[in-house]
Amino acid sequence: MKWWGWGAPEKRFELGEDARALLAAELGVAEPATRVELESVVLPDAKPLPDSLARAAADGLLTGHEDRVRRAAGKSYPDLFRVRSGHPEAAPDAVVMPGSAEQVAVVLRASAAAGVAVVPFGGGTSVVGGVDPHPGPHGAAIALDLERLRHCEVDRTSLTARLGPGLRGPAAEAALAEHGLTLGHFPQSFEYATIGGFAATRSAGQASAGYGRFDELVTAVEMVSPAGRVATLSTPHTAAGPALRELIVGSEGTLGVITDVTVRVRPAPAVTRYEGWFAADFESGAEVVRALAQADRLPDVTRLSDVEETRVSLALAGTATWKRSLLDSYLRLRRRTGGCMLIVGWEGEPEDVERRRALSSRVMRAGGAVRLGASPGRAWSRGRFEGPYLRDELLDLGYFVETLETSHTWTRYQELYGAVGGALRDALAAQGTPGLVWCHLSHAYRDGASLYFTFVAPRKAGAEIEQWRAVKTAACEAIVATGGTITHHHAVGRDHAPYMSAEVGAVGIEALRALKGRLDPAGIMNPGKLLPG
Amino acid sequence: MKWWGWGAPEKRFELGEDARALLAAELGVAEPATRVELESVVLPDAKPLPDSLARAAADGLLTGHEDRVRRAAGKSYPDLFRVRSGHPEAAPDAVVMPGSAEQVAVVLRASAAAGVAVVPFGGGTSVVGGVDPHPGPHGAAIALDLERLRHCEVDRTSLTARLGPGLRGPAAEAALAEHGLTLGHFPQSFEYATIGGFAATRSAGQASAGYGRFDELVTAVEMVSPAGRVATLSTPHTAAGPALRELIVGSEGTLGVITDVTVRVRPAPAVTRYEGWFAADFESGAEVVRALAQADRLPDVTRLSDVEETRVSLALAGTATWKRSLLDSYLRLRRRTGGCMLIVGWEGEPEDVERRRALSSRVMRAGGAVRLGASPGRAWSRGRFEGPYLRDELLDLGYFVETLETSHTWTRYQELYGAVGGALRDALAAQGTPGLVWCHLSHAYRDGASLYFTFVAPRKAGAEIEQWRAVKTAACEAIVATGGTITHHHAVGRDHAPYMSAEVGAVGIEALRALKGRLDPAGIMNPGKLLPG
Repeated sequence: MKWWGWGAPEKRFELGEDARALLAAELGVAEPATRVELESVVLPDAKPLPDSLARAAADGLLTGHEDRVRRAAGKSYPDLFRVRSGHPEAAPDAVVMPGSAEQVAVVLRASAAAGVAVVPFGGGTSVVGGVDPHPGPHGAAIALDLERLRHCEVDRTSLTARLGPGLRGPAAEAALAEHGLTLGHFPQSFEYATIGGFAATRSAGQASAGYGRFDELVTAVEMVSPAGRVATLSTPHTAAGPALRELIVGSEGTLGVITDVTVRVRPAPAVTRYEGWFAADFESGAEVVRALAQADRLPDVTRLSDVEETRVSLALAGTATWKRSLLDSYLRLRRRTGGCMLIVGWEGEPEDVERRRALSSRVMRAGGAVRLGASPGRAWSRGRFEGPYLRDELLDLGYFVETLETSHTWTRYQELYGAVGGALRDALAAQGTPGLVWCHLSHAYRDGASLYFTFVAPRKAGAEIEQWRAVKTAACEAIVATGGTITHHHAVGRDHAPYMSAEVGAVGIEALRALKGRLDPAGIMNPGKLLPG
Repeated sequence: MKWWGWGAPEKRFELGEDARALLAAELGVAEPATRVELESVVLPDAKPLPDSLARAAADGLLTGHEDRVRRAAGKSYPDLFRVRSGHPEAAPDAVVMPGSAEQVAVVLRASAAAGVAVVPFGGGTSVVGGVDPHPGPHGAAIALDLERLRHCEVDRTSLTARLGPGLRGPAAEAALAEHGLTLGHFPQSFEYATIGGFAATRSAGQASAGYGRFDELVTAVEMVSPAGRVATLSTPHTAAGPALRELIVGSEGTLGVITDVTVRVRPAPAVTRYEGWFAADFESGAEVVRALAQADRLPDVTRLSDVEETRVSLALAGTATWKRSLLDSYLRLRRRTGGCMLIVGWEGEPEDVERRRALSSRVMRAGGAVRLGASPGRAWSRGRFEGPYLRDELLDLGYFVETLETSHTWTRYQELYGAVGGALRDALAAQGTPGLVWCHLSHAYRDGASLYFTFVAPRKAGAEIEQWRAVKTAACEAIVATGGTITHHHAVGRDHAPYMSAEVGAVGIEALRALKGRLDPAGIMNPGKLLPG
């Protein structure tokens, strides 16, 4: 992965002429951003590790410049902006790559004894500051990179697999594919994010309606905390008290290190069928999705773009292949004067896919949606992991680009959509940088759905972080004021920690603190994340 | 509800001649049990409540003999045996019935200040000692009866309902039926158990495959703890950290009092269709259920009896109506020389029910199961809440009767079935009271299923509790040794608390203790439950 962005260095998302023209027309031409060379990235001097910790790290200790740069930040806008500018906010004093859960335990004990902060690091794809290597009150911080923990043990009878936390999405799928199985977990970060990260952050994949969110796939989990090892039983369900599994899942490295995840897996689908449909507007489109969810007719993939995302994302989808397939639809759509793209997909055995497709289609048609055919579906499928590559391109062009997400009940869904969209537009304008704001629904439930906002605006040169903070704060405050959750699947990290009190209340925060106090008495685990300061 | 058993006093499960003959032939004629009159039940003298607590309880304070007897125990065998004998192990010093969440908070504060234990009481249907009113280290204990908290607010758009914890199953369903909705949660305790109890114990209903277990239905929960109020957001999902909702659900009154539960509801089904099928043995029947679950073909109700349950429960099903419908099938079955009854059911719109039935049937047939028709299904449906009435009858006849349950992955399912069944038979024999042991599967998942054991044996007169403890301990130890969960849906209570360390490990116990220490610093909430002593 690029140290300054997303994906392999040779892979780019080429923005076409039309796309550049649209951006220039609507946002003005930005001042292109400069990117420093790797060797010019300025890191704080590395504090030497105590001998005891260096011994515990043994052969898994890295201290090179590039090693530290690569674990200096995640992939949020402020993370990327700082790294590209050559000034990450912090850097780990060393990187430790344990080879076993036992070594994790030894490293944590040594770190706790020496007062060194430990920041678990999987794919490093956090967009909420979840892996920022801040030492907190401690003198030093290590990044604990889990890359070496990559086991995969399949139980074909129970359709479960024990997976190492360091397995990236494609490696996990490749290991399962040898058994004809899939996890079915495909978030946009799939190519680089890891099993441990999926569990630690409650990730949700694009086919969550079909396969379940990651937290629904986990049947058991093992975590090594500074206080010792916690493992839950891998029975299909238990009523034995509060669910410890649900405390470890979502703990974002603040309680310990997830060293083993048992997940439900499925036979790999024989066929996948994705289609585009079209709804007149976001409100009627959301009503179609609500009808699908409440009638148990939800396709495995269900993604509804609002009018603006439909318009802009089609224009930005720049490659020749994309254009051919999407532009045809797009032009057809334009004759319908705006509207919302609804991508739906079914996966499984051919007979099931066709039956479920027919049932869903009936509901969508009854809700006034119009079928566009397979071509937009195929285009979506080809581009489903492209978003972060596009972001790199926009950053290179000098734009400010960021995403955030939330969820609410259907009853307050449009209210939240309006409040957050309005807050983003107003805050961008207040910065003197009016921008484009678009949104989609990508995770639907019987009782509500997620909202995922993307915004692009001219960069406020010299005040990029302030610009980001003002806009992000406005959106978060709108979410909290409307009773939405501060995050549906990006997790809390540093960026959302100030809003956790609104999420769980003062007593809820106390409960989480008590838990952390017992499992991580020295407070070394991922300081500054999850809990408000 | 009878103070000494289950259901309205006038309602009995009449055991037929055949049933009595079978019991006499296989277990011997037991010495009929005597049942004392209500006024002869011996209670410890009630300790007077501190004035501050009495004031906090205000108009909701009950101290009569019957009030105390009715909250002196749940409905496990030792609970019932002791109460019927006139010697409950403990009794609340008073019963407090708060009229609001605010009054719960006031009562908890007063109790904490005065050092009085608080035992939350809903339907009182616990079969694991979950409501036994033990004061623990405190001088007195009150039962906090939630009967007055019975609100129901329906959100028709999001298909959710905010329910008061004191609503019993039928009252909740009646309130929802006014809106054409159902919760779909029908455990055997449905007629008397409450919403708060369902949440506090992770209840699972007979149609859990279709509607979800209760913990899957809960979208938000409010709990008043001695440290204050905790409420989770009612968004359809959140990735904001460890799931506090999943800490409150399953907390069994040890952290606080659940005062509000928001649940997902559904349109009431237009039709319900239950059928009997027949599998050659428990192993092949379980394989059929596994195939159903793993192919997404699970009926909403799926209950597989083992050979012994099929034989005995048909014989015990005593009423004339039952006989007509079941005996026909039974006799047909006998010609197949033993085997296992599989009850399956689908609920919903007629078209859906028929389609899903056809899909499930194909899988069941492919697995070698044979369709018996609707008559056993209808009989099951009529008798689905009858188990506890039958138990009263068996207790009256002087038998020892109890149930327990667990779950495991399919990979170790038959191993656990054999281990627990064997442990029960051996332990009963070792007590000098060999008995009947039978089992069913009633909650299936892609990765495994539950096992629910019932056993009946001659009562060891004069040593009933010792007999129960020896047999229960043997079964629990077999479960733990085989890696099953100590409870799939009955919860922990007092009876399973000693096995919690096996369930979540020493560090897991520490985590739960930390949580309790923060939310209930005086340790007044439901002493002796959930956590090992």
